[in-house]
Amino acid sequence: MGRIICAGLGPGDPDLMSRRAERAVRGAGHVAYFRKKGRKGQARQIVEGMLSERAIELAMEYPITTEIPFNSPEYNALLSAFYDDWAARLADLARATDIVVLCEGDPFFYGSFMHLYTRLRDRVEIEVIPGITGMTGCWTATDTPITWGDDVLTVLMGTMDEAEMIARMATSDALVVMKTGRNLPKVKRALARAGRLEAAWLVERGTMPGERIVRLAETEATDCPYFAIVLVHGHGRRPEAVPPTIQPRVEAAQ
Amino acid sequence: MGRIICAGLGPGDPDLMSRRAERAVRGAGHVAYFRKKGRKGQARQIVEGMLSERAIELAMEYPITTEIPFNSPEYNALLSAFYDDWAARLADLARATDIVVLCEGDPFFYGSFMHLYTRLRDRVEIEVIPGITGMTGCWTATDTPITWGDDVLTVLMGTMDEAEMIARMATSDALVVMKTGRNLPKVKRALARAGRLEAAWLVERGTMPGERIVRLAETEATDCPYFAIVLVHGHGRRPEAVPPTIQPRVEAAQ
Ligand SMILES: C[S@@+](CC[C@H](N)C(=O)[O-])C[C@H]1O[C@@H](n2cnc3c(N)ncnc32)[C@H](O)[C@@H]1O
Ligand SMILES: C[S@@+](CC[C@H](N)C(=O)[O-])C[C@H]1O[C@@H](n2cnc3c(N)ncnc32)[C@H](O)[C@@H]1O
Repeated sequence: MGRIICAGLGPGDPDLMSRRAERAVRGAGHVAYFRKKGRKGQARQIVEGMLSERAIELAMEYPITTEIPFNSPEYNALLSAFYDDWAARLADLARATDIVVLCEGDPFFYGSFMHLYTRLRDRVEIEVIPGITGMTGCWTATDTPITWGDDVLTVLMGTMDEAEMIARMATSDALVVMKTGRNLPKVKRALARAGRLEAAWLVERGTMPGERIVRLAETEATDCPYFAIVLVHGHGRRPEAVPPTIQPRVEAAQ
Repeated sequence: MGRIICAGLGPGDPDLMSRRAERAVRGAGHVAYFRKKGRKGQARQIVEGMLSERAIELAMEYPITTEIPFNSPEYNALLSAFYDDWAARLADLARATDIVVLCEGDPFFYGSFMHLYTRLRDRVEIEVIPGITGMTGCWTATDTPITWGDDVLTVLMGTMDEAEMIARMATSDALVVMKTGRNLPKVKRALARAGRLEAAWLVERGTMPGERIVRLAETEATDCPYFAIVLVHGHGRRPEAVPPTIQPRVEAAQ
C-alpha cells in the first residue's frame, strides 16, 4: 500500500519550502497538482527543476465551461464530480505507490487539497506537510510585523458579503483579505467604509517573481492577480485593553 | 557592515524549517535568541545540532524579578530597557559581522523579535525569513483543515478581556487562541458562553516532542504549557452566505 503525501510548498519562493517538503518533492515518483486549463499551475511552478526525471506528473485540470455561471449549483456539481473522479484515481494509484500532491501555501488553510482530503481520508493513509501560508509571505514582504501584543487578527475572503466585511474590518486590529482578484473594488469600498483604507496594503504575488507591494488607496486598479492579498497591520494592543465595540458600522452599510 | 538575519524556524519540528532558514542557521557565525533564565530557549532548542562549532551564541535572557508584578508599568519599563540594551549590542556587533536571530514560528506574527526589529530597522540592514506559524503546525497536527470556502478565521490572545473574547468567539467560523497557559480557565469559560466549547481542541507543543492533542472540554486542567493553542475548525462557509449577527452574546457576559 502506498500513501498520499500532501506537500505544502509555501507562498511561492522555492527557498521557503520546508526541508520535509523538499525531500518529498525530490523523492517523488508520482506528483499530482491542480491547475487551470492552459496554465502551468502555481504549485507545479514552485517545484520547477526539483522533480526527478522519472517522476510521473498528474495534472488535475479544473473543469471550465463558459456556458455555466461560476458559483451556480450546476458548476458546483461539476466541481464535485471532478474531485470525486480524482479522489478515485489517486486512491487507486495509492494501492501500488506513493503520490505527492503539491499544494501552494499550507494545505489546510483555504486549500483546494481539502476537497480531496475529505474524500480520501478514510480510504488511504495521508500525510500532510504544513507550509508557510501565502499571507505570512505577504506580510513579511511588507517589512512590518502583522500582529503583536493583544492584537486580534481577522482573515476574510474577498468573496464574502460586503456589509459583513465592513463590520469585521472595522472591529479587528489586524486584517488579511484573500481571494481579492475581481473583488478588489468591493474590498476597497468596504475598507473605506470601515475607516481602514489608508492603512491597507495590497501585496501581489508575494515572494514570487513579479512581487508588487502598493498602498491600496494609491491603486486605481479594478482588479488584481489571483495571487494577491490585502493587509492591514496591527499596532500592538495592550493586554486587557478596553474592548472596542464589536459592531459599529453595519447599519450604515445596509 | 554586517546584517541582522532573523530566521523564522517554524512551529518546533526542525524538519519544518525552510531551506533558507536552514542555510542561515548552518552558516551563522553569531546566533542570538531569547530565553527565560534557567531555560535552554525554544528557538535554540529547534536548531540543536545544526550550529557550526565556531558559532558564538548570544542568549538574550528576559529579566525576571519576583518583586515586580508582570504587566505592571515597572515591569514594562524593565522589559523596554532590556530590548533597548540588546538592540544596542546587536547594532554594535553588526558593524563587523552578520548575526542570525533565531525565532520560533514566524517572526512577524506575535513574535518577540519585533521589539528588536522596531528598534533596529533604521540602524542596521535586516532580513526577515518567514516561518511556518505555530498555529499552522497545530492545525496540521489535528488532521483537519482549519478553513475553507468563505470561512472567517479569528486569531485571539488568551490574555484579552473575557467579554470581548466571548463576542469574537461566537461570531467567527474558525478560531485560534494563543497564549493560553494560565488563561486556560478563562478561554474555556468564554468558549462555553459562546457555544463553541464542544468543538474546541487544545494542542500542546504542536510538532514538538511531547505533542498532545485533546478535546478542550475533556481536559480538567486549569493551566497548560506556554506552547499551547486552542483551535475551533471552520466548516466551509459558502461564498455570499447570509452574514451572521456580529455581536450576539456580549451583554449576557457582562
Ligand atoms: C485558495 S487560497 C489558497 C491559500 C493557500 N493554501 C495558503 O496557505 O496561502 C488562494 C488565495 O491565497 C492568497 N495567496 C496565496 N499565496 C499568495 C501569495 N504568494 N501572494 C499573494 N496572495 C497569495 C490569494 O489571496 C489567493 O486568492
Ligand atoms: C509570543 S507567541 C509567538 C508566536 C510565533 N511567532 C508563531 O509564529 O507561532 C507564543 C504563543 O504561540 C503559540 N505557539 C507557538 N508555537 C506553538 C506550538 N508549536 N504549539 C503550540 N503553541 C504554539 C502559543 O500559544 C504561545 O503562547
